[in-house]
Amino acid sequence: MSEAVSRPTLEAVAARAGVSRATASRVVNGGDGVREPLVERVRRAVEELGYVPNQAARSLVTRRHDAIAVVIAEPETRIFTDPFFALQLRGISKELTAHDNQLVLLLTEGRDDHARVARYLTGGHVDGALVFSLHLDDPLPGLIDGSGVPVVFGGRPGWSDGGDSAVYVDCDNRGGARDAVRHLAGLGRTRIAHITGPLDQTSAADRLQGYRDVMDALGESDPQLVVASDFTPAGGEHAMGELLDRRPDVDAVFAANDLTALGVLRVLRERGRRVPEDVAVIGFDDVLPVTERSEPALTTVRQDIEEMGRLMARLLLTSLNRTAPGTDPPSSVVLPTTLVRRATA
Amino acid sequence: MSEAVSRPTLEAVAARAGVSRATASRVVNGGDGVREPLVERVRRAVEELGYVPNQAARSLVTRRHDAIAVVIAEPETRIFTDPFFALQLRGISKELTAHDNQLVLLLTEGRDDHARVARYLTGGHVDGALVFSLHLDDPLPGLIDGSGVPVVFGGRPGWSDGGDSAVYVDCDNRGGARDAVRHLAGLGRTRIAHITGPLDQTSAADRLQGYRDVMDALGESDPQLVVASDFTPAGGEHAMGELLDRRPDVDAVFAANDLTALGVLRVLRERGRRVPEDVAVIGFDDVLPVTERSEPALTTVRQDIEEMGRLMARLLLTSLNRTAPGTDPPSSVVLPTTLVRRATA
Repeated sequence: MSEAVSRPTLEAVAARAGVSRATASRVVNGGDGVREPLVERVRRAVEELGYVPNQAARSLVTRRHDAIAVVIAEPETRIFTDPFFALQLRGISKELTAHDNQLVLLLTEGRDDHARVARYLTGGHVDGALVFSLHLDDPLPGLIDGSGVPVVFGGRPGWSDGGDSAVYVDCDNRGGARDAVRHLAGLGRTRIAHITGPLDQTSAADRLQGYRDVMDALGESDPQLVVASDFTPAGGEHAMGELLDRRPDVDAVFAANDLTALGVLRVLRERGRRVPEDVAVIGFDDVLPVTERSEPALTTVRQDIEEMGRLMARLLLTSLNRTAPGTDPPSSVVLPTTLVRRATA
Repeated sequence: MSEAVSRPTLEAVAARAGVSRATASRVVNGGDGVREPLVERVRRAVEELGYVPNQAARSLVTRRHDAIAVVIAEPETRIFTDPFFALQLRGISKELTAHDNQLVLLLTEGRDDHARVARYLTGGHVDGALVFSLHLDDPLPGLIDGSGVPVVFGGRPGWSDGGDSAVYVDCDNRGGARDAVRHLAGLGRTRIAHITGPLDQTSAADRLQGYRDVMDALGESDPQLVVASDFTPAGGEHAMGELLDRRPDVDAVFAANDLTALGVLRVLRERGRRVPEDVAVIGFDDVLPVTERSEPALTTVRQDIEEMGRLMARLLLTSLNRTAPGTDPPSSVVLPTTLVRRATA
């Protein structure tokens, strides 16, 4: 255990540099109006004494922590098993680090902990927050709304009240889903099923809507061909088993994400169905560790997840005036998707 | 973007409960000496108004944030690819959540960011820190030492100055390595190689020492049989290729961790060596996602990683007096390891 021992004070820095405490403070806190030779002397004194600014005191003056919280509204177990989150964090981390902001990831065991997360967010420990993977009935947005903590959301928020003013980064979930289903129809498939994600998330709801757009236009809609699931491989397996029992004649599956598609492929293999000959399969996300390792290689709808993370961080920093002046005020961004053809469709 | 709007104040709570501001403050901040009916009235007012305590103000009084930082001294990319970290975080998360403390994971791109991490740690945002995967020349311990922030380390710290007083949780790396090498010798192997981890980490240095203990005792030490690596599958591949070129007669490999062993198995497969017939292989850690999926199933030295995380959190909370009174002051813990026999040795 580290013990508290005396550490160099700002007064010591000022004395060594031969300047007033106020001047030393101005240099340490990045203020203007100090002549360059004095700045240099203070910097040298800081270095020689190994002075570390008292951040708490500094924050009281600057109201800046140079720290951004990231909240993924899922239990930590999912964060470490779904590569989507690792990719998004990678983009966020690169962007925050480039602007010398600390990434503060707040982990939870589940929704019961979101009140505690909100307390931390509103407690003066971070300058803003990036929040993603929200479910519709999550209390978190309500808890942080009105706290004055700037937030950028990952994925379009689904709540109706106040959601209009929210800034978010998302991909074109509906359009990407349409591309996938049109591609399956173009292959001559007529019994195209959809295994959904959790429908209390807008990404899952939008992908279902895109599927329905095309199926309705084709006049091939059939509620039996839609099975609800949860974005996990186990969920995909379960749903695919149910689908095959219900509609053994299914000849194509659009899975709501790549992890779901992994489960779908496993069940098709077990049941002796050939992919893509008997059943064509398309996923969503293009998380490479999954799509490259799948057997056969997965055709999927690609979204640039790392770039989305980077953009979220950039929008938030812009709103905090941390980036170049003259940039536009932040508004939401929806990125296009691309169909990536591999072996399964 | 959320806008700052008025939110209920402590004064409003006091007024609604019909008590003084001081009484309301005492209840909200968990102080004693308020009669139960008044406590009840304040609690009801808090609930009805949706009052969220101003954590910053509260912290100034209580000097408590109910938040614990976790610092893994590796780039975020490694944190999400080595299951060791996910398991340790799982143990930490469960323990902190059980005591309603927020887990604050500070991510970095690399060592250049550790000064910023130290600023956050000493900036009054957390009550203590759990720090692991430290390398010998990392500036982080020096930066947070003397700040008064209580720290528990994951793994025995390797620095000589001040490291004696550090509280840490580790497994018996040296003893576990001895068990592995003795087991290989017991199988009749005589040219037992070791592929090390990064030797600026005590876990890797201790495992090498355990390997040497047994090889020296057997009179079979041979520097050619030791190849340095870095705890990654790619590093393991590279080292195994070098080892086979250097000593084609090698008949056993003790790999410093499971990820390294994965790389070793891949190269042996490519070079047409049978495992375990031609070359026996043992890993270290027993990270199940790796050992269960490896081909053949990996024999390894098991350490209870999740439990180590839990213990780190518990030691820190104990030192902060968050757990039951009467518990002993924290001291370091070294957990035993177990050899888990599967197919590779």
